[in-house]
Amino acid sequence: MKRIKLVVAYDGTNYCGWQIQPNADTVEKVLNDKLSKLLGEEIKIIGASRTDSGVHALGNVAVFDTDSTIPGDRFSYALNTLLPDDITIQDSCEVEKDFHPRHCDTRKTYEYKILNRQFPIPSKRFDSYFFTYSLDIDVMKDAAKYLVGEHDFKSFCSARTQTETTVRTIYAVDIYKRDDVVSIKVTGNGFLYNMVRIIAGTLIQAGTGHYEPIKVKEMLDSNDRTLAGPTAPPEGLTLVEIQFL
Amino acid sequence: MKRIKLVVAYDGTNYCGWQIQPNADTVEKVLNDKLSKLLGEEIKIIGASRTDSGVHALGNVAVFDTDSTIPGDRFSYALNTLLPDDITIQDSCEVEKDFHPRHCDTRKTYEYKILNRQFPIPSKRFDSYFFTYSLDIDVMKDAAKYLVGEHDFKSFCSARTQTETTVRTIYAVDIYKRDDVVSIKVTGNGFLYNMVRIIAGTLIQAGTGHYEPIKVKEMLDSNDRTLAGPTAPPEGLTLVEIQFL
Repeated sequence: MKRIKLVVAYDGTNYCGWQIQPNADTVEKVLNDKLSKLLGEEIKIIGASRTDSGVHALGNVAVFDTDSTIPGDRFSYALNTLLPDDITIQDSCEVEKDFHPRHCDTRKTYEYKILNRQFPIPSKRFDSYFFTYSLDIDVMKDAAKYLVGEHDFKSFCSARTQTETTVRTIYAVDIYKRDDVVSIKVTGNGFLYNMVRIIAGTLIQAGTGHYEPIKVKEMLDSNDRTLAGPTAPPEGLTLVEIQFL
Repeated sequence: MKRIKLVVAYDGTNYCGWQIQPNADTVEKVLNDKLSKLLGEEIKIIGASRTDSGVHALGNVAVFDTDSTIPGDRFSYALNTLLPDDITIQDSCEVEKDFHPRHCDTRKTYEYKILNRQFPIPSKRFDSYFFTYSLDIDVMKDAAKYLVGEHDFKSFCSARTQTETTVRTIYAVDIYKRDDVVSIKVTGNGFLYNMVRIIAGTLIQAGTGHYEPIKVKEMLDSNDRTLAGPTAPPEGLTLVEIQFL
């Protein structure tokens, strides 16, 4: 028996998120089905991040145990031949038997992409949120700096969050514009339910002049979800990378 | 009666190209149907470029005549509310009644995108061609320089080409890599059937070392389609812009 780690990329458009649930297509279900078919064993993967319905990934991580003799680095090739076009394995390797992707210290990076122009571009409709009103990037950067550091992010998570503590550390929020796409890249030690999408919704409101950047500090201090901005739609969000420390 | 010009963007993935044909979804058909519905007249647009099945556009151009009193610049807004997500109007304006998008001197720019890495990325599968073998960009640039200028491009067009002459002028071929995507951007006064995709297929073969850059000159001189590279797949190709001179 050995434990294999997969780095998984997916276009979440047609999935009800990562986590298995009855009567729904999920990324976890597809991976379990294809791995079980490939290996002739019943495989149940453990995922690092349970991304939401419609959210994408370049580097989500999952592990599973198998008796297979396939070398760790060959699972990516073998599995990609079975997977649909909207899920691909980017890397695979054998890891320690006790490696658990949710019980490690991690550094996760998410990117939220906003297509900011007069009219939508069809080719970008699946992986960015179309927003037509002009965004002031400098104001967004000013607002974002209050989020960096260790804070209680209770105002920036959905009421559905179930965790012992809502304190998290954000290491960096980088905001930049390339062509018509504004990217908000957030790196932290962990994220609460809907946290990155609420950060994006809040920074978008700052960028349109809806409120002053300093307001973000008040939102954090209030511990009141109703004071932060709206939850931005899922199509703009991608889980870029998970580093295990 | 007035003539309206539209700048049209589309994701060509689900269309059998631009031009109307029986029993197939085409961009021209959708535009005619939606314009006719919007205006209560039977509208038949005239397109500038009849892009192929699966090819995309950011800036194809079409014109139509109407008795409507809608101001020229409002057609983009009105039409976008009726169009499917994979077609959007980027601009609209009134033009001279004798403006014909295929009887003008133009400068057209196409971009061919190659996702060049070990494994595909799901979010890029609709607008780039996945190619796993390593490409040498500098060699591709060397090969491309022989294409610039006025040449007979008979070796670089499909046998289905029906034109008086196969002489065209290419003003520039720019090749660059951004993240994992190699872009080939070609600007010319006109392009023959499949010409950009054959250029892309040829430059990809140069980039893998399949032949020396100077070979491209021999291909041009030969006027023999069988000597140039293969026709690269349609999903990598986007008609970026048409300038009317």
